[in-house]
Amino acid sequence: MTEANFTDWMARQQQRAEHALEQALPAATLSPLRLHEAMRYTTLGGGKRVRPLLVYAAGELSDAQTGTLDAAASAVECVHVYSLVHDDMPCMDDDALRRGKPTVHVQYDDATALLVGDALQTQAFDLLSTPGLFADPARQLRAIHTLARASGSRGMAGGQAIDLASVGKELSRAELEVMHLHKTGALIRAAVLLGALSGEVSDDALQHLDRYAKCIGLLFQVVDDVLDAVADTATLGKTAGKDAAHNKPTYVSILGLSESKQLARELASEAEAALAGFDARARRLRELTHYILSRQF
Amino acid sequence: MTEANFTDWMARQQQRAEHALEQALPAATLSPLRLHEAMRYTTLGGGKRVRPLLVYAAGELSDAQTGTLDAAASAVECVHVYSLVHDDMPCMDDDALRRGKPTVHVQYDDATALLVGDALQTQAFDLLSTPGLFADPARQLRAIHTLARASGSRGMAGGQAIDLASVGKELSRAELEVMHLHKTGALIRAAVLLGALSGEVSDDALQHLDRYAKCIGLLFQVVDDVLDAVADTATLGKTAGKDAAHNKPTYVSILGLSESKQLARELASEAEAALAGFDARARRLRELTHYILSRQF
Repeated sequence: MTEANFTDWMARQQQRAEHALEQALPAATLSPLRLHEAMRYTTLGGGKRVRPLLVYAAGELSDAQTGTLDAAASAVECVHVYSLVHDDMPCMDDDALRRGKPTVHVQYDDATALLVGDALQTQAFDLLSTPGLFADPARQLRAIHTLARASGSRGMAGGQAIDLASVGKELSRAELEVMHLHKTGALIRAAVLLGALSGEVSDDALQHLDRYAKCIGLLFQVVDDVLDAVADTATLGKTAGKDAAHNKPTYVSILGLSESKQLARELASEAEAALAGFDARARRLRELTHYILSRQF
Repeated sequence: MTEANFTDWMARQQQRAEHALEQALPAATLSPLRLHEAMRYTTLGGGKRVRPLLVYAAGELSDAQTGTLDAAASAVECVHVYSLVHDDMPCMDDDALRRGKPTVHVQYDDATALLVGDALQTQAFDLLSTPGLFADPARQLRAIHTLARASGSRGMAGGQAIDLASVGKELSRAELEVMHLHKTGALIRAAVLLGALSGEVSDDALQHLDRYAKCIGLLFQVVDDVLDAVADTATLGKTAGKDAAHNKPTYVSILGLSESKQLARELASEAEAALAGFDARARRLRELTHYILSRQF
């Protein structure tokens, strides 16, 4: 398994995540039909699955069981997708395109989008609390608590609130970093930690992984900002240039394009350094750093 | 404690729930301020706290610890409040008044209401997954899973979806029952089960409690429909007559007022019967049946 090159490994894990989500979501034939159909519409068949990839890559470090990792990967992705569905709604970013498809409120309606996001968040905790999913119930509780902390008002949802409050304002680089550490960083950290917690892992290893994940989360955002500034809508699969259009502060608007790229390279080096103490089982985490960085260069 | 009359007991538990929620929610001085302020605005200082009362009453049966019960009561109430905040939004019921106060999207804005609901849901799972909260981690996982199942697409959120789909349609009594068993019944059942699971409880006792809770959930809804038809806005603390105004099917619209009241009495008797095997520790659950019934008569 670990012999495959990164591209093959990534393709296999993306398929695996897709299959895990297929199984994890309620069938479209189950009542209420429209809600379940819309949950599947927005979750399946799209996305790079960066968070599941991080779950799987970190799971290699702790020799986690397949079923545990699949549930952890699906749970993190459900939280991510719920946040996208709500973020795209008219009262937030009012976006019509996501992952190359019409957003849920466009394809269905606003009320359905609201419920789809709500139910996807619950689905994440439903999946992760399945009795017997982890060998150790106490570790399972820790995984659930990690996901909840990362998603709530002091994590992802808090980041969205900071984002809302920052529209049209001048942010310092430090303020922008605080926003992103919450808005995207927290869930990316949770993905890495949940992957590791799905198997046996020491607290010391978790600390190093947390440092890695913090860098990766910021890296991901810096690259996103660069892509948003330079790529077109067809390439992104979502509306390009929307941060500028919404007058939102980005790394590019604060640091400029060239310095943003430099920051990305520095964050990638720091992520690499955080993994220095790990053996070859950290290979996929190392490769993911380069993958996230190379989305831009 | 168990000697107090019901009114005193209820007042004390309502204060206890208020205090538990005060402690459970992030402080209004924590960033992001506006989000935390709005979460506290909508959760604190209002409501009859029916679900926390059920948690506490069921907890008496299983000799649950105070801290465990407080967290369980707060978690269930956070899910309930999140559903109210989202339900009141313009794309759903578009309601301006709740618990005698302007709704969140009126007092703040739509985007904040969306995030407040999202973050309150997460807060529920954050609270309930606190490591060490239950004496037995496996029982704690079961409690989390029970809450997730009750809240998601096959529970409360699913009930909202059925409700949406039923506007302007003729429902049979059976279809109406299916909607309410999901929309309000599922979370009320979870409240009773979580109270019991907070301490030591047998699977047999849980089954009887589940039957009790199913009756109570429907009873609560039938009484709500009757009150919505006959009471005024000032008495309810929320907009009266809104079901009729939204052309939503209710027990009153399907069965008529007199037969709805009769159904309420039958459900109360059935709830009573489900508790027949329990000793005096079920006193508060028995009293709650009468309390919920007597909201109308």
